This record gives sequence, C-alpha cells and structure tokens, in this order.
Amino acid sequence: MEPGTVRIAVDLLGGDKAPAVVVDGALRAFGADPDLQLLLVGPPEAAGGFLSVLSPTDRARVTVVPAYDVAGMTDDAARASRPGTSVAAAVATVVDGSADAVVSAGATGATVTASALGLGRWPGVRRPALVATLPAVAGPVVLVDVGGSLEARPTTLARHAVLGAAYTAVAHGTPEPRVGLLSIGTEPGKGDRARRAADPVLAAQALPGGARYIGLVEGYDVALGERADVVVTDGFTGNVLLKAIEGAYALAGGPPTSGGAPRAAALLGVGGTVVACHGAARDDDIASGIALAAHLHRRGAVAAIAALLADAQGRLDDAERSGKDNWSGKLP
Amino acid sequence: MEPGTVRIAVDLLGGDKAPAVVVDGALRAFGADPDLQLLLVGPPEAAGGFLSVLSPTDRARVTVVPAYDVAGMTDDAARASRPGTSVAAAVATVVDGSADAVVSAGATGATVTASALGLGRWPGVRRPALVATLPAVAGPVVLVDVGGSLEARPTTLARHAVLGAAYTAVAHGTPEPRVGLLSIGTEPGKGDRARRAADPVLAAQALPGGARYIGLVEGYDVALGERADVVVTDGFTGNVLLKAIEGAYALAGGPPTSGGAPRAAALLGVGGTVVACHGAARDDDIASGIALAAHLHRRGAVAAIAALLADAQGRLDDAERSGKDNWSGKLP
Repeated sequence: MEPGTVRIAVDLLGGDKAPAVVVDGALRAFGADPDLQLLLVGPPEAAGGFLSVLSPTDRARVTVVPAYDVAGMTDDAARASRPGTSVAAAVATVVDGSADAVVSAGATGATVTASALGLGRWPGVRRPALVATLPAVAGPVVLVDVGGSLEARPTTLARHAVLGAAYTAVAHGTPEPRVGLLSIGTEPGKGDRARRAADPVLAAQALPGGARYIGLVEGYDVALGERADVVVTDGFTGNVLLKAIEGAYALAGGPPTSGGAPRAAALLGVGGTVVACHGAARDDDIASGIALAAHLHRRGAVAAIAALLADAQGRLDDAERSGKDNWSGKLP
Repeated sequence: MEPGTVRIAVDLLGGDKAPAVVVDGALRAFGADPDLQLLLVGPPEAAGGFLSVLSPTDRARVTVVPAYDVAGMTDDAARASRPGTSVAAAVATVVDGSADAVVSAGATGATVTASALGLGRWPGVRRPALVATLPAVAGPVVLVDVGGSLEARPTTLARHAVLGAAYTAVAHGTPEPRVGLLSIGTEPGKGDRARRAADPVLAAQALPGGARYIGLVEGYDVALGERADVVVTDGFTGNVLLKAIEGAYALAGGPPTSGGAPRAAALLGVGGTVVACHGAARDDDIASGIALAAHLHRRGAVAAIAALLADAQGRLDDAERSGKDNWSGKLP
C-alpha cells in the first residue's frame, strides 16, 4: 500500500448490479486501505448499507453526495452525462476539489463525456482513451485503447502510442517501455489500411518516457508480453480483445495466477484521475478500480503523464491540424 | 472417421518450419485416416523422409508432385502465388482433378490469391473469407473472418454472416445457427461506424441454412458460445482475436480440455476445398488441417454451401453492385 490520504468519488448508480455491487466493492477497498476516504455519490438510502457496518471512526472517512439520476446504457453519451446523473455529480466533486479521483462502472460513453465536459481534455486530445493493464507471462502489458476511441485512424493510433508509453512509464515505472502496434503479422506491411498507414507514423514519432517503437505485434503478444510492454490498437479491437481473453480464461478453467483480464481501465486525456469499471464488474472489480484510482492519484500520474506529453504534444497538434489522418475514411 | 477416399495436396514448403513440420503433420494425419491419400507438393527430396518410413502398401497412397519455389512471407500475394510456387502447384492438382483439396501453412495472402486464381471465386465474392471453429463452453463457435478480408465494411460483414451461416449448417450440421455480429456491447447502436452500419443490414438480410441473426455479441461470446454459433467480424479483428485467445490459453496454463485455439481455417469463396494453416503450425496443427480438409470434402461442403448460398447470392450481388457499402472509406 502506498502512503497518502486519497479521496475517491464512487458512482453508486453505475453498473449492471448497482448499487449493491458498488457498495460491496467500496467496502472491500475501504477495508484494505486505511488512508482511503470515499465520497459515495448516489441516493443517500443506497449509501445507508455501507455506513451501517462502519465504526464511528471509519464513518468519518465517508461522505455521501446525493444524486438520483442514472446514466442508462441505452442513453446517448450527451444525455447520459447531463448534470444530475451520479457520474456527472461524481466528476463535479473532483472539479470542486472535494475528491481526488472518480470511479464509475456506468456506461463508458457517459463516463468519458461527463469527464471530458467536467475536467476538460488535454491539448491535442480529441477523444480520451481507456487504458487497461493485463497480466502477461513476461510482466504487465498495457493495452490502449479498450473502448474510448473506436475508429482506427493512424493519428489516433499514434496518439494511443504516446499515451500508452507515458502511462506505462508513470503508472508501472517501466523503464524505456517497448511499444508495439497490434496487427495480423509482424512483418512490415501486414494489416489493414489503418495499420499499414500507422506503422511508419509510429516509427517516425518520438515517444515519451524513453519508450521505443518496436513495430508490429500480434494477438499473442497481449497475453505473452515478451515483445512489447505497450500494445497499441483502436478502442473497438481492444475492447473486443479484452473480453475475448476474459472468455478464454473462463473456458480454460479460470484466470492465471498472475490475475485475470482487468475490469477497470484508466481514462487518459482528461484533466483528472478517472477509472472506468466494466458494467458487469463484481465487487472485487470495483475494489480494483478504486485501488487503481488511488494508485494513480498517489503517483501524481495525471500531472506526470501531462509533463511527459508536453514535448510530444506539439507534434501531435501539428498532425491533428494537417490531419485528415492521411486517410479520408468518412461517413457520407 | 468418416468413410470415403480423399486426396489431399499438402504444400510442403508452407510454414515457418517447413518442410520438417509439414512432413511430420502429414504422417500423423496419414496414420489416423486409412482412406487418406496424399499428394506431397514440394522438392522430392523433402518428401523422401515421409516415404522412407512407409510400408510398400502405404507408399501407394502417396504421390510426390515436384515444386521448388516457396511463397515467402514478405512477398506480395501476387508474386507469392505465381506458378512454380508450391502453393500454386498444390492448387493446380485440384484444378486438374488429381486432388480433392489443398492444405497449406504458407503465407495466407499467397494461399488466398493462388486459390482464387486457380479455382475461381464464387459469384458475388470479391475476397474469400477464412473461417475458424473454436471450442467454446456451449459448443463450437465459428468465427468468420480470421484473416481473409481485412477491411470492416458493412457489405463484407453481411457476406461473412451468410458464409458463416452456410458453413456452420454444412460443416457442423448445426440446425438453425444463431449468427451474431461482434461488437463492444449488445445494445443496438454499440460499436464503431462499420458495426453500426452493418447491424441493420444483417438484421434485414435472409440467411441460409435456417440461420437467424441475433444481433450484437461481445468478445466473451467467442469463447463462451452461449449466445451465438457464428460470430461475424472483419478479418483483422478476427485474426487478432484468435491469436489473443491462443496467448491467453498459454498464460492460463494450457488450452481447455475441449481444445485450444484452432490453427487451421477453411477458405470460403473459392471453387474448391482449401484449408490454410497458421505459419507457426506444429505437426498436430498440420494434421488437424488435413483432417479438416478431408471432413469438408467428404461432406461435399463446397457444393453444399454453394447451393445454400444460391438464394442469398442474388441479394449479395445487388448489394455489391449498388454498393460502396453505404460507406465511402477509401484511401486517397
């Protein structure tokens, strides 16, 4: 456990089995981390079960922030992130300085939009990325993106490489992270159009944190981790991949001893610490998400990553402006 | 073992460890299936090790077809599939009627191009699809595409649904296969542009073999199999997914007892039975590929699938002609 008080705003209404599972997960995290303070954001009656089992001393570590609207899975992101929803209220506690980080297992689109609206986006970041760390044979592998930015454009993939490199250096302390682009073979030229166009862009781009681009990697590398510490992909492919790996562990008789597929991901590209948990998160997944948010806050990760990006950002801005991604895929 | 003599042309030069692994795999398949005849396509000296261990009776089940050029992994598909390569020579044995099917672990692009050039493509099929069957908790799941057609266009996804439904009905005998479109959530509207555009196209389209479209599925469903018998995706996502699942099994301590991630896939859309094995195939993977090719031939799968498609094909042709996929993604 890293030292230092940290205040986490937990969205009680986010997730398929909210608020019960969220309350159980928050209790787990609370018990494991004596320096953790929680803001429970949701209907006060939903927080009652949490408070009733605490000692008076522990109760002083908890604040209830009333919010009554839930961001539904079928709402569009703008509607789901309107003021009054529990996720928007949780983000607001970070904006007003009463919390250090947000954890929500609600609809990802709502979490991304509420966070971008409330906390602002980093310069040059159009759409925040979701970053997940998977256990692998040779050590952790950071997969970016797992659902923040769904379209595979070369400049988006290049930005994911920069974000993933900085995150890996800061959050995991990996020296000189190796960054690979996920494709269907390792030889140059393998992949769909977006990957073929992105490969030389990534090769030409400076990476933060002493990271280096090692070229194309394959699906195996996400679970093996021998070739890359950071695996770069679009949010569609990353999301599908993460869930397929989770399914494969279920079929193989359980996750490896090093840990299963993560159900908590850090949101990168907004001006604060936000962790999104899977809608089907169980209590231990929620607890992992809270622990991840606490870890990132204690490391000063958002500021440290932003500092690492400051140099690379100019080049990204230029690419976005001249942009069209050198690839004109558009809806009619 | 299904009855009936079947003659398989095996590409001795395809695969990372060819010809040794291919010869070992062919020997395994040969020993397991007394009605199997093999055409070993490659340098006669490479076939020598195979022949030397056979009895005179078994030797009569083997023909050596000389070919000396290898389709390299870094060659482009057109160059790799030129006459004289072992894969083109293997396809030629099916064209001239001396073999019933081809198995190659060489570069997929070369196998696809050589097969399309030699055997012709089905009407309405621009680019053949690679179809893999994965073990899943609730029974086999057919994943289409795993590397034949890399760009995610709505009409391509719709064609993959038709091909996958017909393949599942014929090759696995699944009654009324359930067909799902791989995305990042199950609610309508979840996914990238291509998936959002494809979902209503798949819903409106008639499927062969009594199959029905059940909507969006997620990564878990590939390994669990509870929601769909056929999972439709683009070849980029499918290839990455298949390899990630293979890597996950390695990390989890081995494949499930129901079998690991397949390293042999059927090529659909060409006028003959072709099985592509993974370049890193081991001898048992090669043997599985040969067994799959034998199974498909004995079922008369190509003709049966073509017959199932006859009705759906008119609609596909129309879609391809009016096409542009209602989606104008293009390279400049």
